Amino acid sequence: MKKINPIKTDPGKVRLLETFDNSFPDRKYLIIHRVNEFTSVCPKTGQPDFGILTISYIAKKKCIELKSLKYYLQAFRNEGIFYENVTNRILDDLVKALNPVWMEVKGEYSVRGGLNSTIIASFGKK
Amino acid sequence: MKKINPIKTDPGKVRLLETFDNSFPDRKYLIIHRVNEFTSVCPKTGQPDFGILTISYIAKKKCIELKSLKYYLQAFRNEGIFYENVTNRILDDLVKALNPVWMEVKGEYSVRGGLNSTIIASFGKK
Amino acid sequence: MKKINPIKTDPGKVRLLETFDNSFPDRKYLIIHRVNEFTSVCPKTGQPDFGILTISYIAKKKCIELKSLKYYLQAFRNEGIFYENVTNRILDDLVKALNPVWMEVKGEYSVRGGLNSTIIASFGKK
Amino acid sequence: MKKINPIKTDPGKVRLLETFDNSFPDRKYLIIHRVNEFTSVCPKTGQPDFGILTISYIAKKKCIELKSLKYYLQAFRNEGIFYENVTNRILDDLVKALNPVWMEVKGEYSVRGGLNSTIIASFGKK
Amino acid sequence: MKKINPIKTDPGKVRLLETFDNSFPDRKYLIIHRVNEFTSVCPKTGQPDFGILTISYIAKKKCIELKSLKYYLQAFRNEGIFYENVTNRILDDLVKALNPVWMEVKGEYSVRGGLNSTIIASFGKK
Amino acid sequence: MKKINPIKTDPGKVRLLETFDNSFPDRKYLIIHRVNEFTSVCPKTGQPDFGILTISYIAKKKCIELKSLKYYLQAFRNEGIFYENVTNRILDDLVKALNPVWMEVKGEYSVRGGLNSTIIASFGKK
Amino acid sequence: MKKINPIKTDPGKVRLLETFDNSFPDRKYLIIHRVNEFTSVCPKTGQPDFGILTISYIAKKKCIELKSLKYYLQAFRNEGIFYENVTNRILDDLVKALNPVWMEVKGEYSVRGGLNSTIIASFGKK
Amino acid sequence: MKKINPIKTDPGKVRLLETFDNSFPDRKYLIIHRVNEFTSVCPKTGQPDFGILTISYIAKKKCIELKSLKYYLQAFRNEGIFYENVTNRILDDLVKALNPVWMEVKGEYSVRGGLNSTIIASFGKK
Amino acid sequence: MKKINPIKTDPGKVRLLETFDNSFPDRKYLIIHRVNEFTSVCPKTGQPDFGILTISYIAKKKCIELKSLKYYLQAFRNEGIFYENVTNRILDDLVKALNPVWMEVKGEYSVRGGLNSTIIASFGKK
Amino acid sequence: MKKINPIKTDPGKVRLLETFDNSFPDRKYLIIHRVNEFTSVCPKTGQPDFGILTISYIAKKKCIELKSLKYYLQAFRNEGIFYENVTNRILDDLVKALNPVWMEVKGEYSVRGGLNSTIIASFGKK
Repeated sequence: MKKINPIKTDPGKVRLLETFDNSFPDRKYLIIHRVNEFTSVCPKTGQPDFGILTISYIAKKKCIELKSLKYYLQAFRNEGIFYENVTNRILDDLVKALNPVWMEVKGEYSVRGGLNSTIIASFGKK
Repeated sequence: MKKINPIKTDPGKVRLLETFDNSFPDRKYLIIHRVNEFTSVCPKTGQPDFGILTISYIAKKKCIELKSLKYYLQAFRNEGIFYENVTNRILDDLVKALNPVWMEVKGEYSVRGGLNSTIIASFGKK
Repeated sequence: MKKINPIKTDPGKVRLLETFDNSFPDRKYLIIHRVNEFTSVCPKTGQPDFGILTISYIAKKKCIELKSLKYYLQAFRNEGIFYENVTNRILDDLVKALNPVWMEVKGEYSVRGGLNSTIIASFGKK
Repeated sequence: MKKINPIKTDPGKVRLLETFDNSFPDRKYLIIHRVNEFTSVCPKTGQPDFGILTISYIAKKKCIELKSLKYYLQAFRNEGIFYENVTNRILDDLVKALNPVWMEVKGEYSVRGGLNSTIIASFGKK
Repeated sequence: MKKINPIKTDPGKVRLLETFDNSFPDRKYLIIHRVNEFTSVCPKTGQPDFGILTISYIAKKKCIELKSLKYYLQAFRNEGIFYENVTNRILDDLVKALNPVWMEVKGEYSVRGGLNSTIIASFGKK
Repeated sequence: MKKINPIKTDPGKVRLLETFDNSFPDRKYLIIHRVNEFTSVCPKTGQPDFGILTISYIAKKKCIELKSLKYYLQAFRNEGIFYENVTNRILDDLVKALNPVWMEVKGEYSVRGGLNSTIIASFGKK
Repeated sequence: MKKINPIKTDPGKVRLLETFDNSFPDRKYLIIHRVNEFTSVCPKTGQPDFGILTISYIAKKKCIELKSLKYYLQAFRNEGIFYENVTNRILDDLVKALNPVWMEVKGEYSVRGGLNSTIIASFGKK
Repeated sequence: MKKINPIKTDPGKVRLLETFDNSFPDRKYLIIHRVNEFTSVCPKTGQPDFGILTISYIAKKKCIELKSLKYYLQAFRNEGIFYENVTNRILDDLVKALNPVWMEVKGEYSVRGGLNSTIIASFGKK
Repeated sequence: MKKINPIKTDPGKVRLLETFDNSFPDRKYLIIHRVNEFTSVCPKTGQPDFGILTISYIAKKKCIELKSLKYYLQAFRNEGIFYENVTNRILDDLVKALNPVWMEVKGEYSVRGGLNSTIIASFGKK
Repeated sequence: MKKINPIKTDPGKVRLLETFDNSFPDRKYLIIHRVNEFTSVCPKTGQPDFGILTISYIAKKKCIELKSLKYYLQAFRNEGIFYENVTNRILDDLVKALNPVWMEVKGEYSVRGGLNSTIIASFGKK
């Protein structure tokens, strides 16, 4: 079994995330952002990976500002990171920025060698 | 974190909503209206936003009259309001007008910068 | 709030409904009829309405005969009746004719003024 | 209400069904066969009926051999039988041949007079 | 009823499977690999079979390496094995290699004689 | 071979058609109206027929007013007329009302007894 | 190369075809009938074949009566005949019955052994 | 027949259009812009209209700048104008701004009263 | 530029092809066989390739027998050959076996590294 | 009107392109490569663009090697270039490398501000 170094948060990326006040903090409502154009690089082959990210959450006090989310995700464009890790990393970073009631990040990655992969990670209780 | 002023109900819009008697008040049945052509304006960029609203509810004594619902929603055409807020605002206004057993408002907004957003807010128990 | 007269059953229509013996009365199985071509008239505008009806049920002793169901539904062709009412009326008439364990009538009506509506009413426990 | 004679099993058809040993009897796994080209005859009009059958089951000791299933179903080609009855009959015959933990037979029949019907019958607990 | 020899694990195939460390072992997240181009041979007719495999799991300490999964599945290309058996065999081999919290293997096989089959087998609790 | 009486224009229906001035008479541009909810009655069985009409034309001096087109087509709701004839009749009436450069009427009628029919008739040169 | 006996017209089938007068013989318009539920038998294996037939024509004096077309096509239900031959046979029979300006018969047959076939034969000039 | 005032170009709107140099003026290549969110107002009812515009052209010396095209089209948001006229008006304005080899504007407008309309106007030879 | 050895016909494969007499040699009709499950091996990487082949032709005296076509195509299962070459090779072999009026072979190959390829080669005049 | 600098070929990119011998130079056959994951950067906003490229050609003596095509296209990943220019640039580079009989490059770019664009450029005669 191969060893892979632990995935650490990149403070530079996290600082890109901005939030705004949730105007309806007393209601548990669902927010879903679908990102159709996520791309990063495979750390093993150096080849680009492409995927669709779906970020769903129930906010507490803060909502994610959309333009800042776009810049944060674009910061992965030339970074080498595996499917499993990038999905969990984004969940960790967003949970830290928003402290939501519940959050789920789903990554659907494009076909490689006749296979395509989906990773779904969540935080808190829905 | 940015501050945004609280979203207040607009009495002029709410007065557009008309209702009619529920002819089957003893049966808990589901009514779903799908509005394919909702549009408002982004308060940050001044650019138009487009979306599909799905309004589902179980009526108590009153049902929403469809033509009045259309006029009420058209009143947002040139108003600047965020996705999260417009969805919750419409839920609040309709709950006040109908006093339903249960209601859900879902807004599916069109792609902006490679992202599209869905907001789902509900009132009462299904 | 407008007043609408209560919707009464039309005995002439109900007499069109014929049934046959359920050959498997001891098994709770599901029967679904999808009617692709339902049409009636809007009582307010006089304009024709179009819809798809889905009638699902678990029979006790009787099943609905399909040709008679078709004639019963065609009897609404030139009648003025609201979406909410026609869906509930059909449920009431079929429950009276079949006395089923469970029944649901779903009406999906076509687009009017950029909106389309679905009404789902049920009887008994599934 | 019309009377219909009880639907009896046809031993000639049942003898067409062959089985093979379930190689994984200790695991409760799901087997689904979708039959796209089922046809029988309407006993009332003599007109051919067409449908899609979906046979799902959790095996105990025996699995159905696919070629024999095909021949068994083809034996209905020129037989007059109602939708509700043929679906339940096939369930009874397969349950007798396989003695499964659970089985469901779904028949989706093609459009007749603007209506299409689906019948879903099951045996045992999933 | 026909007898079929028990399906034994092929150690040569299993040795093709490689794993890597799960970087987020404390979070129960879902990994799904969809294999669009699986092919083996029917042991009865010698004809090739084609299918789509969907492998879903919640990892404990180990994740499956994708390239090794591809080679492992290609090793079935010229092997004669029934649908029911190949699906269960792959589940057994992957469970042995990964020791996951939960795993499901779904095989959707292509049309043969107007029928197509789906087999779904799982291990552990989701 | 059966004899069918010639199909005559109904002056009452034709009078429903209204037109407006073509603002761009010097440009040969294409106008297409798709009517999703056309219904008439089969003259042989008395059963309702349903269809989708597509009316395409290149205007000379006059364009068809949409609301009047809707009323004209609704006048067929309870009239008995064959597919082939209603399609040609509508073409004749519209050609008389508009005197276009070119016009085509396509009627796609719904399934009856496992068959569905499309009739395409045109006037002038495209 | 195998020899196959010439395909002869079956006068019994042809007599099932009925026609009616074309009410618009001076206009060259297109009539298309799509038959979703055609079935015959493979003369080699005795297995049923299924297909979708599309019959398109420009009538001279006569149009095909739809119910008679249905009965004519049902007469192939238990007959053994190859794809290529049944398509051409139907074209020959319909040309004889209608003497059209132009006619095309397209047969799209269902998957057998991973292959599906389409045969397109025509008469006259479009 | 109703009279409608001639549609005049609005110089304010036209000034919004910006162009850039065609870098490949010697090659006749095709540029297609699909605008998914066009909206204007019906001059008769005051109700909003929605549509999809497809603008295709072969450039001579100038190409249309996309952001300016968006602002130009948004200027119709609260203007009352018929489908036929807005499509031709946009064609005229763009032809004046670009002087292309060939241009086509297609407007596909959403359903009103069960009808939806498409207008296709072009300039020059393709 | 790399050199690749010329692609020679394999007489063993060609002998698998069988034909039958065209029963309608005087009519130029179209025969299309769609093969959904073609697979060969990439000569460079040794990895399996998958594709959909569409073989269309107008026969002279001979038609291809379907079962023999299936066996002929299965003979490529473990052979290393490029997309461009396998498509042209199959065209050459079938032209030699059938001597058709016209023939086209289209190969649509599955995604590799984010690209998928289609090759279309033809013989004679349609 | 804005001025944009002429688009020059980048010799570094072109050197990435490799070719192989066309094994069937006497036959004019069609080769189509669809690239699902093309990405570059907008030179105006610095934002990433995404698109689908379809490269079709009839080869003379040389065919493009697929892996080298992939590397060539990946070299645009972080380059700022407009839709119109990147499509024409790729056509020029491939024509220089292959000297084909005919070639077409189509770029379908993703939605920006509610618009999406397609550019189609070609070389030679088909």
